[in-house]
Amino acid sequence: MLPIILDLSSLRAAYQSGLTPLDLVEDIIARRAACKDPAIFITATPDEDLRSAARDLLVRAPEPNSLPLWGVPFAVKDNIDAAGLPTTAACPAYAYHPDEDATVVARLKAAGAIVIGKTNLDQFATGLNGTRSPFGAPRSVFDPAYVSGGSSSGSAVAVASGLAGFALGTDTAGSGRVPAAFNNLVGIKPTPGLVPNVGVVPACRSVDVVTVFAATVGDGVAIRKVMEGYDAADPFSREAAPANLPASGLRIGVLDGAEREFFGNQDVEALYDAAIERAKSLGAIIVPFDYAPFRQAAELLYNGPWIAERLAAVKDFMTSNADDFDPTVRTIIEGAKAYDAVAAFEGKYKLEALRQKTKVEWTKVDILLLPTSPTTYTVEEMLADPIVKNGHFGRYTNFVNLYDYAAIAIPAGFGRNGLPGGVTLIGPTFTDDALASFADAMHRALGSGMGKDKTASLPEESRVAPPDDGFVPIVVVGAHLTGMPLNHELTGPGGYRLKTCRTAGDYRLFVLPNSLPPKPGLVREPGFAGNGLEVEVWALSPAAFGNFVQKIPGPLGIGKITLEDGSSISGFLCEAHAVIGAEEVTKLGGWRAYIRTKSSISTA
Amino acid sequence: MLPIILDLSSLRAAYQSGLTPLDLVEDIIARRAACKDPAIFITATPDEDLRSAARDLLVRAPEPNSLPLWGVPFAVKDNIDAAGLPTTAACPAYAYHPDEDATVVARLKAAGAIVIGKTNLDQFATGLNGTRSPFGAPRSVFDPAYVSGGSSSGSAVAVASGLAGFALGTDTAGSGRVPAAFNNLVGIKPTPGLVPNVGVVPACRSVDVVTVFAATVGDGVAIRKVMEGYDAADPFSREAAPANLPASGLRIGVLDGAEREFFGNQDVEALYDAAIERAKSLGAIIVPFDYAPFRQAAELLYNGPWIAERLAAVKDFMTSNADDFDPTVRTIIEGAKAYDAVAAFEGKYKLEALRQKTKVEWTKVDILLLPTSPTTYTVEEMLADPIVKNGHFGRYTNFVNLYDYAAIAIPAGFGRNGLPGGVTLIGPTFTDDALASFADAMHRALGSGMGKDKTASLPEESRVAPPDDGFVPIVVVGAHLTGMPLNHELTGPGGYRLKTCRTAGDYRLFVLPNSLPPKPGLVREPGFAGNGLEVEVWALSPAAFGNFVQKIPGPLGIGKITLEDGSSISGFLCEAHAVIGAEEVTKLGGWRAYIRTKSSISTA
Repeated sequence: MLPIILDLSSLRAAYQSGLTPLDLVEDIIARRAACKDPAIFITATPDEDLRSAARDLLVRAPEPNSLPLWGVPFAVKDNIDAAGLPTTAACPAYAYHPDEDATVVARLKAAGAIVIGKTNLDQFATGLNGTRSPFGAPRSVFDPAYVSGGSSSGSAVAVASGLAGFALGTDTAGSGRVPAAFNNLVGIKPTPGLVPNVGVVPACRSVDVVTVFAATVGDGVAIRKVMEGYDAADPFSREAAPANLPASGLRIGVLDGAEREFFGNQDVEALYDAAIERAKSLGAIIVPFDYAPFRQAAELLYNGPWIAERLAAVKDFMTSNADDFDPTVRTIIEGAKAYDAVAAFEGKYKLEALRQKTKVEWTKVDILLLPTSPTTYTVEEMLADPIVKNGHFGRYTNFVNLYDYAAIAIPAGFGRNGLPGGVTLIGPTFTDDALASFADAMHRALGSGMGKDKTASLPEESRVAPPDDGFVPIVVVGAHLTGMPLNHELTGPGGYRLKTCRTAGDYRLFVLPNSLPPKPGLVREPGFAGNGLEVEVWALSPAAFGNFVQKIPGPLGIGKITLEDGSSISGFLCEAHAVIGAEEVTKLGGWRAYIRTKSSISTA
Repeated sequence: MLPIILDLSSLRAAYQSGLTPLDLVEDIIARRAACKDPAIFITATPDEDLRSAARDLLVRAPEPNSLPLWGVPFAVKDNIDAAGLPTTAACPAYAYHPDEDATVVARLKAAGAIVIGKTNLDQFATGLNGTRSPFGAPRSVFDPAYVSGGSSSGSAVAVASGLAGFALGTDTAGSGRVPAAFNNLVGIKPTPGLVPNVGVVPACRSVDVVTVFAATVGDGVAIRKVMEGYDAADPFSREAAPANLPASGLRIGVLDGAEREFFGNQDVEALYDAAIERAKSLGAIIVPFDYAPFRQAAELLYNGPWIAERLAAVKDFMTSNADDFDPTVRTIIEGAKAYDAVAAFEGKYKLEALRQKTKVEWTKVDILLLPTSPTTYTVEEMLADPIVKNGHFGRYTNFVNLYDYAAIAIPAGFGRNGLPGGVTLIGPTFTDDALASFADAMHRALGSGMGKDKTASLPEESRVAPPDDGFVPIVVVGAHLTGMPLNHELTGPGGYRLKTCRTAGDYRLFVLPNSLPPKPGLVREPGFAGNGLEVEVWALSPAAFGNFVQKIPGPLGIGKITLEDGSSISGFLCEAHAVIGAEEVTKLGGWRAYIRTKSSISTA
């Protein structure tokens, strides 16, 4: 009844068809038992607690799918509090038992989701590879010799293995994106501050972001929407001010020249190039850009004073328990002691100077398309050179939170070695929703399944519609038609054409006397039996529409026009007194035909 | 020919009447020579250089007032570069000779202004009182026993003494506001990032702001507009996104209860209360608010890691030249060595947690009205307790740049002791223009002159008009009139009523059949000789107007309506076919009269 990958659409369909949350948790228990990777969970929710949670849900919301995430099993990275389960941050000596859920966990539970366990991570979320944990290294679901990616290692593997419908990660340097790439998943990395961090063990508190691993972009966005929203208890939480992206002709920045670095991994390079081609085929305009000011910020995150945020998060514990740290993690965090407050501010100055350089690049592009990780390594390779090889994974991820961007990591297919690669779409602050529809289209155009199921079809139900841009449709009749003299009044402020069609049959069209450029007057006369008139429907933002209406000279105005399909849309009307005695051109079928007549006369 | 205070309007008028820049600089030379305060300038522009500058201006722009600041003499705080004059930051050993003007100085010179000298300051802009300089302590223009305020001490005294038309300050903790208060001047403190800092010696680089001392708000804003604008060479420069304030019913936050602290200065307290009354008489709504989360941020600036920014700015020089510092300044800056990078980030966390608390207060108020400084001291008192007494001055100023606000300091009149007090209007990020008209109205309502001339009238030419809010006027005829059922569609999205008036005489008014709530149809009939119909004109933002138009059901629409005064304004029209056979109510004179008839019938 349930597929390998537990995407939201499949779960909802199963519940609609009679599966109950009690059945679901038994299935999860069985899947966990059958799973061959012993390093995914630090604390699995006990079987009996899963059964209780399912029973509680049925008491609270008996109707199937009566909550947004009704009966959806999810895994929680073990640096995020879930009441009843210890939080360890992958450091046993650090463990505590939270009384409260993290804000995000509380919101997900309220929406009907069920916690199936706390997942493994690079200790204190310090790493991008998944090997820095005393609880073992989770493995890529495609080859157990290879790292899972980190730091949200267990969360990604749980979803890619079909143990959870989704999982929470955290992402400071790329921890919510790199493991998505290595496990054929989507990683939703919200704009910093959109999703609250209350109840999350800080890594770099000023740039930490809670993320979602999901089977599809649609799933991930739906889950993010449950988690997001201002929480005053998080110093960095803020109200979103959603930003748009162009509805068509998206300009996508891609790596160029010397900035194309894959550390010798030709498989990932080929997958990246294929992703660029896919973006092009979806209508994007590909723009090579200068990655240098982004890379230089990426380098600041670990090789700069931000490392002191990691020490700030654990300084008392490090004083008392330095030997309880993973040796690599300890080395990294102790590096913070080299930085004084002057260095911290100097780091900020460097970052802001680099941000000014990125502004030049952002004039050329709307979003960036980058490899998620330029390469991957086996666990053995990683352990042999843990800091340098980990650094390779962050080459295209580290800068994103420092610069306050939104990102969505999506699968990019499989290399000849059978390992997946990923790409990430990166947009300016609060383009989270605006990015999603293109990210989803890219994922759907790929056809490489979901998680470990390389042949699964992406469910139609999770398709992401372009965000409602709030644009207002307007029917234009004469001088504003495409190619006509006033068309720029629509295109100038960012309007776009929706369609060409005809009005209902009871409209008459007149040539307004003494109007320059020539303009028609459209007047409705109920009972008049014509054939309708050719018009175009355009879309404008409310402000552009307001300014447009404001500039229309009398006797023209904007009312409602009934189209041939019966719909009623704002459009040009004319005061009746102005067409008394005017030439009628209704029989020509539209203004364009009239203008054609005129020009053929004048050129004759 | 020239008044005591060299405000822009007076200078322009004098130039218009035949004064030349050559005359002006001779006058400035004479004023400088006559000035009794020897501590205003660190480096005065040599007389011959002033004469050359005047001649150069006449070659470059011969027409009087042909540049925005044609021939306006200005003083530059000596931590801002002006080519040809040394920059000392009030530390002789630190002096250097810049080849280039600071960006702001270059822009002002390009606009025709003439640099008359580099002014004294608290060394490295570290202080709010004006006594921390080896070049002496400038004095309040009203009593030489009293401090001038700082750190922009010489700049304020130069303007208040009539030596300059305006002067540049810098403001980290309040250095562009406190000296304005102590010298009966306006201090324009832009939103951080609006005016570039290229060529300015940093104090706390992330929160430094170049400011203007001027005689009137209008002058200060005009000068700020010359200086502002993105400069990529400043890491913290940014494009402005101007924010509006309500056009009427401005909610002004004022100190309450225990947060009212004047350190025993009843004169300043009384001036503050009088300013509140003045704001009320100008139509503001007075709202006591909780100052605590603002005060706590203010305390962070000097008693927290931001002090490390001051060390960052001079660390090499301090290593080699510690003994060349003013002892108090040295003590403060050396305090930075106690902070490591962890403390720097912890300070940021504290600030952001406090910022969340301010958001609650900002739901209650639109702007804040605070004392600029709660008290003042003699030079002797200040030198006896230089850190504590300096701290008093910053109680209501220190938080402003940390929180990214705009501020305008304005005079508040004189106490019984003959010393002036000041108040500051503080608004959210980029309300710089929106604040100005109310600040100017407050200043004009005061009547305490400009600078040392307590009886000068504020010139009408510098009056600040409310910023154009871009709102669109719309004529409403029926159900949207004040008190009618659909009026909320105007007030809901922030619309406001401009006036009640009548249409031109050739409109007829009909009752639309089957319309709920009842609505009229207004139709123009050229040649019809009526008396016009009563209508209201409202204002909506373009987006609200667009959404409003979009929701209007046919047969109504928005066209242009001609009013009794001949103006043509967007407003409700009706398709002619809809009023055929409808009841005509033109003779009642308007929809309100018709509704009154109906209700008197129904209640009869």
